[in-house]
Amino acid sequence: MAPFFEIQSAPPGSKARAGLLRTAHGDIPTPVFMPVGTAGSVKAVTPRGLKDAGARIILGNTYHLYLRPGCGLIEKAGGLHRFVSWDGAMLTDSGGFQVWSLETLRKITESGVEFRSHIDGSKHLFTPESVMLAQRQIGADIIMAFDECTPYPATPEETDKSLGLTQRWTERALEWLAVNPALHGYDQHFFGIVQGGMHKEARARAIEHLIPLDLPGIALGGLSVGEPAEMMYDVAGFCTDILPPGKPRYVMGVGTPSNLVTLVGLGFDMFDCVMPTRNARNGTVFTWDGPLHYKAARHASALDEPIDRRCGCYTCKNFSRAYLRHLFVAGEILALELASLHSIHFYQDLMAECRRQIVAGSFAPWSAELLARWAAPAQPESSAPQS
Amino acid sequence: MAPFFEIQSAPPGSKARAGLLRTAHGDIPTPVFMPVGTAGSVKAVTPRGLKDAGARIILGNTYHLYLRPGCGLIEKAGGLHRFVSWDGAMLTDSGGFQVWSLETLRKITESGVEFRSHIDGSKHLFTPESVMLAQRQIGADIIMAFDECTPYPATPEETDKSLGLTQRWTERALEWLAVNPALHGYDQHFFGIVQGGMHKEARARAIEHLIPLDLPGIALGGLSVGEPAEMMYDVAGFCTDILPPGKPRYVMGVGTPSNLVTLVGLGFDMFDCVMPTRNARNGTVFTWDGPLHYKAARHASALDEPIDRRCGCYTCKNFSRAYLRHLFVAGEILALELASLHSIHFYQDLMAECRRQIVAGSFAPWSAELLARWAAPAQPESSAPQS
Repeated sequence: MAPFFEIQSAPPGSKARAGLLRTAHGDIPTPVFMPVGTAGSVKAVTPRGLKDAGARIILGNTYHLYLRPGCGLIEKAGGLHRFVSWDGAMLTDSGGFQVWSLETLRKITESGVEFRSHIDGSKHLFTPESVMLAQRQIGADIIMAFDECTPYPATPEETDKSLGLTQRWTERALEWLAVNPALHGYDQHFFGIVQGGMHKEARARAIEHLIPLDLPGIALGGLSVGEPAEMMYDVAGFCTDILPPGKPRYVMGVGTPSNLVTLVGLGFDMFDCVMPTRNARNGTVFTWDGPLHYKAARHASALDEPIDRRCGCYTCKNFSRAYLRHLFVAGEILALELASLHSIHFYQDLMAECRRQIVAGSFAPWSAELLARWAAPAQPESSAPQS
Repeated sequence: MAPFFEIQSAPPGSKARAGLLRTAHGDIPTPVFMPVGTAGSVKAVTPRGLKDAGARIILGNTYHLYLRPGCGLIEKAGGLHRFVSWDGAMLTDSGGFQVWSLETLRKITESGVEFRSHIDGSKHLFTPESVMLAQRQIGADIIMAFDECTPYPATPEETDKSLGLTQRWTERALEWLAVNPALHGYDQHFFGIVQGGMHKEARARAIEHLIPLDLPGIALGGLSVGEPAEMMYDVAGFCTDILPPGKPRYVMGVGTPSNLVTLVGLGFDMFDCVMPTRNARNGTVFTWDGPLHYKAARHASALDEPIDRRCGCYTCKNFSRAYLRHLFVAGEILALELASLHSIHFYQDLMAECRRQIVAGSFAPWSAELLARWAAPAQPESSAPQS
């Protein structure tokens, strides 16, 4: 049987690699960005829109799905793929980060996390076992360990205590999974999560704990939680040097296009973030020239200019900035659909271009130029076609 | 040159007719329902979604477009078709009904209507001439007379006064159009509007005034403004008996599926209404079994049942009532997109089926059965497939 993950190209010159993830719902070239479908919908985008944008794997949030519509219903539907009519691959988080984020509404103990629903205040308990059951019911192709996110900043002692919990919870999850097989007739690949805050020594211990478990993949959690980007890159780069080279590496919940390109250069393969869709709904889309505030008044008469001339998405092929700006200002839902579609397409294109540059052996100079351009102070936006 | 409108089939047994409208943006079989794209967007639906649903003509509201983004900008864009990327046909209303609806914000005089924007309170004046200019700039294939809607109820005197204004405004509009040709290189077909409230004698005078003008089409305005449905049908049916048989007949702003089928049976050809999209956004869609409150709790576990098994729309082919209900309850924008798509598709299907029944000579018994079924007290909804 072909392996779950395979590195297809990792030329010298950078730590970046091009790979392939094989799932029961299709193969996924890496590096890959996974649009976030929080409660069973990538907000404002249809499954056919996602496919058109090039997405092959999307993410679901166990916390949200557990509360609404409930994992029992999703199991009855035959799994989340069928419930939401998505025939590509899926990954679910464990809900660990989400319940941790509830702050005043949750209590963390050795056994798990007691929390109150953000919707109706009802009381619930997540344990490493219960969230594995939830992920079995949901039936994503890739499922995640139940972890405790280490806050930033945290002392070494706080970090160690938190890391210990994540490690014991990971073992409990694996024990549960070993005797509770998948429910929908196909494999679910379990990823461990590396915590350890910004303390490299703790991150190293987290990785050393995971290596002998020989899991299908490993994720970094607890990044992009308020630390400076340079610190995130430093910790992430430290990790790739000691992570097993043959496993897929996933940085959870990150980030901007610059973050993604930088992390690809540090040897990461998988990403997810609400940023492209959330920002699109708030009036900002991403382009090859950096973020574009499409709702800004200066676009009111940009009748001949799409969001990004180099983009082949439905939005850029059919609509002007002036129209999108008008839709946003007029409160039209279509603005949110079209902007979200574009930004998802852009993130897919960005990952595909990273992959092409990796395979061509030109990733390092290409990404350096791109990141420098994006880091430069914003130029006045021009209406002229970009070369 | 082929005529703008042609009746293709009008068999005995009912007043219903099947026809064809020819425009610079495609031919449109009638009877036809035109989805309403208020401010340059059929709410929550992309142009490709509209095409997929079978729509060949959509409506724009001059009042909304005039305020945002402004008719000058639309003219600069090359017309509304280009601005919104819709290559099918379009019709614009004149804004008459919309400014009339502003009630406390408008003042009607012989010269036109002074009104305050519902958006920012700014002062504006619509005259028969200025709204023809606006419609020239927007560039719809079919443009409408500037009229004053007669309220319901209204005395014969009030009705006469109002009708006189509409008649004089229609003449002024025609004079202006005669010396101000279309701006975008294709014909715009001007429809007159029959007012006259619920007074048949006034309606008859309105029609007699329009007949010698030999306009491309004639619309009924001032219906569905609070009167009982039976009264609307009575007035509308009276009108078709004296309207010129060879002109397309358009009932503005109406209505429910039952309204449409009934009015087709009375000899009307064109319809528009915000109902399918507005109700979809509020949790109700239309089906061959009548309205369906898809947000209702009873659909929470309807995992195997689409909105309507007989519907071939994207929503019905891919998603269950349970999923749509979940999306609505979770506040997901996708609920509004999918529900709107379905209801637009259903309205298109309904008109296409009316046309088939007309051509087959079976419209009268078919529509009688359908209307009786829809008028029957609602049955408990079943999960069984409908025969």
